[in-house]
Amino acid sequence: MVPAKIVEIDCSTGGVSEHGVSDAYRYLGGRAMTSRLIAEEVEPTCHPLGRRNVLVFAPGLLAGTALSSANRLSAGAKSPLTGGIKESNSGGVAARKLARLGIKALKLTGQPPEDAPLRGIRITTDGVALLDLADLKGAGTYETTGKLRELYGAKAGLLVIGPAGEMRLSTASINVTDREGEPCRNLGRGGLGAVMGSKGIKAIIVDDSETQNSKASRSSGAETVSPEVRAVVKKFGAALREHPVTGERFAQYGTAMTLSNVNALGGLPTRNYSRGSFEHAEAIGGDSLYETISSRGGSYAHACMPGCVIRCSNKYVDQQGKPVVGSVDYETLCLLGSNIGLGELDQIADLNYLCNDLGIDTIETGAALGVLADAGVWEFGDYQHARTLIQELGQGTPLGRLLGSGAAVCGRVYGVQRVPTVKGQSMAALDPRAIKGMGLTYAMSPMGADHTAGNAIVLAVDHLNPKAQLEPVRDLHLKTLVLDALGLCLFTARVSLDQTSLVEECLRALVGWNIRFDGLLEQAQEWLLTERRFNERAGITAAHDRLPEFMYTDALAPNDSVCDIPQEDYDCFYDFK
Amino acid sequence: MVPAKIVEIDCSTGGVSEHGVSDAYRYLGGRAMTSRLIAEEVEPTCHPLGRRNVLVFAPGLLAGTALSSANRLSAGAKSPLTGGIKESNSGGVAARKLARLGIKALKLTGQPPEDAPLRGIRITTDGVALLDLADLKGAGTYETTGKLRELYGAKAGLLVIGPAGEMRLSTASINVTDREGEPCRNLGRGGLGAVMGSKGIKAIIVDDSETQNSKASRSSGAETVSPEVRAVVKKFGAALREHPVTGERFAQYGTAMTLSNVNALGGLPTRNYSRGSFEHAEAIGGDSLYETISSRGGSYAHACMPGCVIRCSNKYVDQQGKPVVGSVDYETLCLLGSNIGLGELDQIADLNYLCNDLGIDTIETGAALGVLADAGVWEFGDYQHARTLIQELGQGTPLGRLLGSGAAVCGRVYGVQRVPTVKGQSMAALDPRAIKGMGLTYAMSPMGADHTAGNAIVLAVDHLNPKAQLEPVRDLHLKTLVLDALGLCLFTARVSLDQTSLVEECLRALVGWNIRFDGLLEQAQEWLLTERRFNERAGITAAHDRLPEFMYTDALAPNDSVCDIPQEDYDCFYDFK
Repeated sequence: MVPAKIVEIDCSTGGVSEHGVSDAYRYLGGRAMTSRLIAEEVEPTCHPLGRRNVLVFAPGLLAGTALSSANRLSAGAKSPLTGGIKESNSGGVAARKLARLGIKALKLTGQPPEDAPLRGIRITTDGVALLDLADLKGAGTYETTGKLRELYGAKAGLLVIGPAGEMRLSTASINVTDREGEPCRNLGRGGLGAVMGSKGIKAIIVDDSETQNSKASRSSGAETVSPEVRAVVKKFGAALREHPVTGERFAQYGTAMTLSNVNALGGLPTRNYSRGSFEHAEAIGGDSLYETISSRGGSYAHACMPGCVIRCSNKYVDQQGKPVVGSVDYETLCLLGSNIGLGELDQIADLNYLCNDLGIDTIETGAALGVLADAGVWEFGDYQHARTLIQELGQGTPLGRLLGSGAAVCGRVYGVQRVPTVKGQSMAALDPRAIKGMGLTYAMSPMGADHTAGNAIVLAVDHLNPKAQLEPVRDLHLKTLVLDALGLCLFTARVSLDQTSLVEECLRALVGWNIRFDGLLEQAQEWLLTERRFNERAGITAAHDRLPEFMYTDALAPNDSVCDIPQEDYDCFYDFK
Repeated sequence: MVPAKIVEIDCSTGGVSEHGVSDAYRYLGGRAMTSRLIAEEVEPTCHPLGRRNVLVFAPGLLAGTALSSANRLSAGAKSPLTGGIKESNSGGVAARKLARLGIKALKLTGQPPEDAPLRGIRITTDGVALLDLADLKGAGTYETTGKLRELYGAKAGLLVIGPAGEMRLSTASINVTDREGEPCRNLGRGGLGAVMGSKGIKAIIVDDSETQNSKASRSSGAETVSPEVRAVVKKFGAALREHPVTGERFAQYGTAMTLSNVNALGGLPTRNYSRGSFEHAEAIGGDSLYETISSRGGSYAHACMPGCVIRCSNKYVDQQGKPVVGSVDYETLCLLGSNIGLGELDQIADLNYLCNDLGIDTIETGAALGVLADAGVWEFGDYQHARTLIQELGQGTPLGRLLGSGAAVCGRVYGVQRVPTVKGQSMAALDPRAIKGMGLTYAMSPMGADHTAGNAIVLAVDHLNPKAQLEPVRDLHLKTLVLDALGLCLFTARVSLDQTSLVEECLRALVGWNIRFDGLLEQAQEWLLTERRFNERAGITAAHDRLPEFMYTDALAPNDSVCDIPQEDYDCFYDFK
């Protein structure tokens, strides 16, 4: 069954409405869906935390099917961080459950009065109910999910915000539970947690346990599945298993496998982007992570969503084997590691947990801490101080709120020039002076400096050659958007983008969409232009499609390179025809 | 003598260069000059605190002449507050002295290394010298001017920054000394003090005491002056004296004379723009100010620049008659008074002094304090707490730095929606829901919410009629720009804008410019478009030409009015032809 309804909750009144979708929306999913609805329904100049913003959740188009790694959930709104359109997506279990409940998009509109008690939304086969969650005010995401699972059952998937979202901090995340119910898969970027907080919603409980599909999948998993579906699901899974990266390396080393490579390329953000290599890179890299987790009895080869073959996730444990945090990942290892001078996994994992519990983006937090260290607020490498600062965020002290407002605001308030942001959002763990294609990705994405919008590190190009980037990066930009719309995890790219006919087969068999991959790329151009037009109307223009000034002028060791992709490559990026 | 040279100080090297100006610049002065140079020399996307920004000072075109109220000084740069082009102008003695030294513009370019000691610039008839002012690091503007006057003589005019500028806070001012050497005339808006701080310059000392003109003006005041000049100067002065407002009311009540009127119109920002009238308006209005100052032996009818007939300035003293602060003015009475719930002149004057000493814009500080009170950081009306917060600004605590970053950043960090800013700059003391023409002025000025860019309160219109504003406000916008370019104080408007042929006479006699006032208005259109084009290239578009959302939706008591000027009036504002 392809999900076919849009559920709207008016947070001003508590009213719930449902309607079917017209043909024009039939094959939109994930980012394509969230951005389309936002472009249609949100006034681009509205206050992002006001009643006129709309928060949209949309499972990828293939979510809810039995396909591996296809259950990404997109969330979108006007971003309080960038002021532009925002989509952020995540793994976890919620997308699958929403899709199995027939929900193509969930929209939160309006705004309750300032003093209204916190609420929750519970979605089951019986419909949508609003809950009073006033007693969870200020609770961390771990406490929140723990209590909600007690009350509403462990089978529900949860979307929750922490204190950061309640405080409406511009870098607050929405956390999605994984298969064990840990709130550690994050709709992390762009402050969507603040938008959810501004709607007065603490948690969304998605329970599909009474659906036919769910029952079926719990027993044999295939009663209702046609032979054609079964075949394509199997074929896709096999292809993932056969590739050495998606079949083995991700499972063993997780996303951290790339860290030593990036360090060797001189593109690992270190001490607020002052260097591209870190003396403790080995200690925080993939090998070290694998050895630490495996020797202590933690989990690796963990799947964040049911049925994922790739299993890049992990569960980090302390020396006693006690759980610390679900999935320590590459971006966090860098932003809360090398970028702030920390070279010990235990320290990084601890800060990662604190951020998850507060419901704050680890990338933006690490970038902001880097800027604050440059400002002299604390010293790089001082773990205890970093810890205190993140705790302050939870307490809502002025400095804590500042930290939670992101790197750009920290730079502004402290008069720092070395601020690694585009459109107000911090870069992730690839310095575009050494991985030059990332300069285009960061500058040109309507989302701000979004590493997922065309992660150039995977390209077979000379990363230091400024003239070799435009075509492959733009191509990747569009292909990545297709994956975001389909709900396919980016880490399927080695199969889904290399065997595009297989994706075509999946779409045909699973959702009845007969389209060539080239056709998808053409649609992606339109999706991207829709986002860009929203931004233009919000006041974000080509003048914002650029990297921070210091990256053009301050050479990065060890390559002594700067961002020097020709300006015309930026200027023509959107000239698709 | 018409000033004819541009002096440039390269703050990277300390190099000084001078060059003459071509005919194209001959009649540019004040804002027309600063904006022209910035548009030509500053890359609009540069970091405002970086080496590529340029800080320009330019006396008005008529500065240095004997004309009354014509010695305004403009400063301009790319603003760290708005991200766009900025001009701020001030009275005081510096413009006259720069003009008499033959300087049409003073440019600070480049940037010294981070750890370079603070420097000063001394300009005399002997030329330009750089000074080591390392020992003034962190000094308030009062201590700074006191010491510099001891060292370099009381005849010098000073431009200084306080700790706020050194800290590069986005709302730092540059303070200009008045005739008594008090640093209380402010190039207040848009954070130009931070730009000066980023250039490593603490003070500019302008000493024209050895110039021929200056000697002449000190003795009989007229040796070198032709009969034609003498006649027009006399005529202009007489016209100012004859008008009841410029001849009497300003001298007695100062700028505060308008407060009770605005309160009666329901447009006095009260407790962060939550109301348009203040229960203690009478206590902080013009009558009360006059009675307080006169009964205590302070000064009123004080001229901030030599020869000013209007004399709107004052010197506020405490109950013992001891000086508190030079010139308590309308905007400060409102923003540091009604807007933060303070209804006692002594309290407002004290906060005014603190701001002046720190070198921070009183308007933006009051607006930011209002937002912080709405956020629950402190309570409206708690004078001691407000005082502590401003002191924190000087200490550079996180909260202090936040306060010094302006109302928009405070709103962002605390998730507040009621933030009275446009393009990142706070409005001044007129709520555009009651004085509706101000909505156009605030929204459409390239400078952000700038009350001086067309102060609609002076217009003879129904201020509550949304359809009566466009033509008169646009007309005033351009006329005001003419005054800013000529160096004429806005308060001459009742003469200069009502008797435009007199302005034509002045220009002909004093600087040899044979132009009709209509011609000036045509030039003003071009000046304004130059600024607007800079902003477009900086990424500021029509989407930023709007008021904060709450002003369109939240009705203002006591009129229960909102901003409802038709959108097309905003859209066509710049269609001059």
